[in-house]
Amino acid sequence: MAVYFHEEDLPEGVLADGPVAVDTETMGLVTIRDRLCVVQISDGKGDEHLVRFGPDSSYDAPNLKAVLADPERLKLFHFARFDLAAIEHYLGVMATPCYCTKIASKLTRTYTDRHGLKMLVEELLGESISKAQQSSDWGGPDLSEAQRDYAASDVRFLHRMKDELDRRLEREGRTAMAQACFDFLPTRARLDVAGWADHDIFSHM
Amino acid sequence: MAVYFHEEDLPEGVLADGPVAVDTETMGLVTIRDRLCVVQISDGKGDEHLVRFGPDSSYDAPNLKAVLADPERLKLFHFARFDLAAIEHYLGVMATPCYCTKIASKLTRTYTDRHGLKMLVEELLGESISKAQQSSDWGGPDLSEAQRDYAASDVRFLHRMKDELDRRLEREGRTAMAQACFDFLPTRARLDVAGWADHDIFSHM
Ligand SMILES: Nc1ncnc2c1ncn2[C@@H]1O[C@H](COP(=O)(O)O)[C@@H](OP(=O)(O)O)[C@H]1O
Ligand SMILES: Nc1ncnc2c1ncn2[C@@H]1O[C@H](COP(=O)(O)O)[C@@H](OP(=O)(O)O)[C@H]1O
Repeated sequence: MAVYFHEEDLPEGVLADGPVAVDTETMGLVTIRDRLCVVQISDGKGDEHLVRFGPDSSYDAPNLKAVLADPERLKLFHFARFDLAAIEHYLGVMATPCYCTKIASKLTRTYTDRHGLKMLVEELLGESISKAQQSSDWGGPDLSEAQRDYAASDVRFLHRMKDELDRRLEREGRTAMAQACFDFLPTRARLDVAGWADHDIFSHM
Repeated sequence: MAVYFHEEDLPEGVLADGPVAVDTETMGLVTIRDRLCVVQISDGKGDEHLVRFGPDSSYDAPNLKAVLADPERLKLFHFARFDLAAIEHYLGVMATPCYCTKIASKLTRTYTDRHGLKMLVEELLGESISKAQQSSDWGGPDLSEAQRDYAASDVRFLHRMKDELDRRLEREGRTAMAQACFDFLPTRARLDVAGWADHDIFSHM
């Protein structure tokens, strides 16, 4: 159980087969402005890998891209919309098929409007994560110990959360509805990058 | 070129093959509360058919349902989200595959935020429709002449509008994005009826 740090690409062969948990850290929330700084990835067996990209990166990361683009590998995200946009914009691959724990939470935890990762991890798994580093500078030459811990914790619990959320989706008869939402996420991400970030394309307005 | 009025179902064989334009009139905007009063349908050859359902209707309309559920027939709507929900809730069929002129307009007419049917018909086709009857009582025993005209005009221009919107989607390279949006509409409609009508399921909140 360790956090591994890499520069510019993932080493080959460090991930077991099966679904991978993925998260990104960027310079901010505006994808075309705020560059991709870190991609976190875990196979759910206990290790987390952090791949850092420098300010002049060419984002030429064949191993990471191969994993993200692999149609056989489900990619687990929390708020996939944002990560899919950053990954396609900077790495040039659409990280599908994907699963989004925030959408699964919205479709099952109807008794609350708190669908943040911290809250979910606490309620579903009884684990605690710190969000102190969320709004920090991910673009510097080094990542602090606190940043590495934070970045790793963002992918540490997604496999276990999926298991619990899948049970609840099934119980409430919303598995197909969730899958249809996940299937639309690549388009939602592309609309964001194309200029519709602040518009609900399905709204009457 | 005429408007035909029917009670409780469409007669058999009144529509040519191919895409049909469809609209609904209801008692209001809350699908589970506001019953389906009228379904308008046109094959684009010049006639419009209005099917009225009474307050005690069983919505047992086999001819209309067969057309709406036909997987070989594209259904053209303006703001399909709302009509798909009313049709599935009251008639029990999902009217797919579908096309939505409001979404096609949003993806192409980026120079305006006016995507209402009246505006679209005026700009794209130079035709004029009246919206005076939009908020009228569609549940009464008779429909007025003005209501019939209005209801028919809501499906009269959708085929021609689709042609023009398709050209623009193609020109701007957004045909695939539009199709992905159309494909999500059944789920968006089901979320509305299931209680998420006022929530953008893809939002961060
Ligand atoms: N409009 C927005 N407001 C807040 N956070 C947003 C956002 N768009 C994307 N995000 C990102 O969504 C992720 C999940 O947020 P939450 O836990 O509140 O659900 C956060 O990523 P990180 O946790 O990787 O920094 C955050 O940066
Ligand atoms: N939230 C909402 N606000 C306004 N109109 C809505 C609506 N939800 C559904 N509609 C319906 O959307 C249709 C298209 O509206 P618009 O022309 O403004 O784009 C209208 O149908 P009708 O024209 O069949 O009455 C209207 O009733």
